[in-house]
Amino acid sequence: MKTASRTIVFISDGTGITAETLGNGLLSQFESIEFAHVRYPFTDSMEKADVCLQRITEIGRKDGQRPVVIMTMMDGGIAARLRQADALFLDLFEAFIAPLEQELGQRSTHSVGRSHSQENREYANRIAAMNFALAHDDGVSAADLKNADVILVGVSRSGKTPTSLYLSLQFGLKAANYPLIPEDFERDRLPDSLLPYRDKLFGLTIAPEQLHRIREERRPNSQYASLANCRAEVAAAESLMRRAGIDWLDMTSRSIEEMAVHLLQAINVKRQLTIDN
Amino acid sequence: MKTASRTIVFISDGTGITAETLGNGLLSQFESIEFAHVRYPFTDSMEKADVCLQRITEIGRKDGQRPVVIMTMMDGGIAARLRQADALFLDLFEAFIAPLEQELGQRSTHSVGRSHSQENREYANRIAAMNFALAHDDGVSAADLKNADVILVGVSRSGKTPTSLYLSLQFGLKAANYPLIPEDFERDRLPDSLLPYRDKLFGLTIAPEQLHRIREERRPNSQYASLANCRAEVAAAESLMRRAGIDWLDMTSRSIEEMAVHLLQAINVKRQLTIDN
Repeated sequence: MKTASRTIVFISDGTGITAETLGNGLLSQFESIEFAHVRYPFTDSMEKADVCLQRITEIGRKDGQRPVVIMTMMDGGIAARLRQADALFLDLFEAFIAPLEQELGQRSTHSVGRSHSQENREYANRIAAMNFALAHDDGVSAADLKNADVILVGVSRSGKTPTSLYLSLQFGLKAANYPLIPEDFERDRLPDSLLPYRDKLFGLTIAPEQLHRIREERRPNSQYASLANCRAEVAAAESLMRRAGIDWLDMTSRSIEEMAVHLLQAINVKRQLTIDN
Repeated sequence: MKTASRTIVFISDGTGITAETLGNGLLSQFESIEFAHVRYPFTDSMEKADVCLQRITEIGRKDGQRPVVIMTMMDGGIAARLRQADALFLDLFEAFIAPLEQELGQRSTHSVGRSHSQENREYANRIAAMNFALAHDDGVSAADLKNADVILVGVSRSGKTPTSLYLSLQFGLKAANYPLIPEDFERDRLPDSLLPYRDKLFGLTIAPEQLHRIREERRPNSQYASLANCRAEVAAAESLMRRAGIDWLDMTSRSIEEMAVHLLQAINVKRQLTIDN
């Protein structure tokens, strides 16, 4: 039960996504408090800082308690202006820049964002990867699979599409995905178009009960969604993957972020082994 | 020019995405140093901590300099074990949990991750939103548009798809997107299927030169990709949006994350206005 309420103000000269992600992790450690979130992304001028300042004061007056400000501000001048407000300030950059400067024996540049050329290259990679993931979703195309960084296989609704898209958008990996369908189980072998790329294949699996719930939402009361069919498909897919020597991960109690990071590790390990041999 | 090199070790009992995102922001402030990244996500046991400990020592020996460890560890015991290594430790949770506990007058629970029911609900929302975005990509379907949180419009390759997918995966927003095509410019009005949803429309635009470069990669030397055609389409789309009273954002020097956060703000402002009126 929530017993109290406090306002959290996220301020950043960028998107504020990092501040909010880390902040959510911190706030989840205080379960009995209800937090109201207020966001001020792109606070990159003194004028915008003054608007925030005023809002922080108003919130403190309204709540009867000073707000908690979680911020990532590269610009020390704007950060200093904000600190004139009555609030608890948790400044993610400020806390770590000084020890880093000392350790690295260098002053930091205090500039917002990364260099444009680096950012553009990274960005172009991610967009290309996302276009690749969309063009190779659900086995739509087997063309160009040789350029995939990873090819996910698994039964329908096992989480291949969201995992592929996240891998592409977050990490710039070209992730294709390919469904394992009843025809594959009857033939008891991988689809022919995947055979040349066995070393890029990773499997996803999922508890039949959860698969059943997910498929019921899509096609209620269908044979496709029935628990018996989900059990049979998952068992057949796991058996097929085992015999084909494909590593797989269980989606059941994992988020797409967790799946993506597990896959990233597995891909890196595989690449490392390939390089070492 | 990079003058030195240091190893950064990211350790987390979760995915480590937050640690790495914030870490990249911090490290980008030291432009002349080359950083090697090593990742240990899901470090949630003493055994795994011991593996990290050993690796940190090895890296320090090999580099001739102690590594910098950036970590998000909820479990204080595992964090303490790691700290036995010779490294600079930047612990994102530890730095802020103490001041938060004091401010909120409560001890934190030091548990990894959020409550499962909350996580599951959020997760289900994001997956549903992503499925919505995929089903309503590029005007594929006008069915169910009444359930969209936002409908992005713009010329082909103006960034609608990646922005829609990011809005859904990161923020759980149901984002549809709809292309503005030459036929719309000839008729000089919005596609009929969008007319009932005018209050959900947001436009994306882009500098014709950049659009030209993007389209050239897709269809080299085509009329579609020519600079003259890109100029004409962008001008026609902006004129159409202006007369239809649709707000728009310029994608030219913005990342998808920046676009998504700008849109989130714009949607919230619009909803707020609707509620206030």
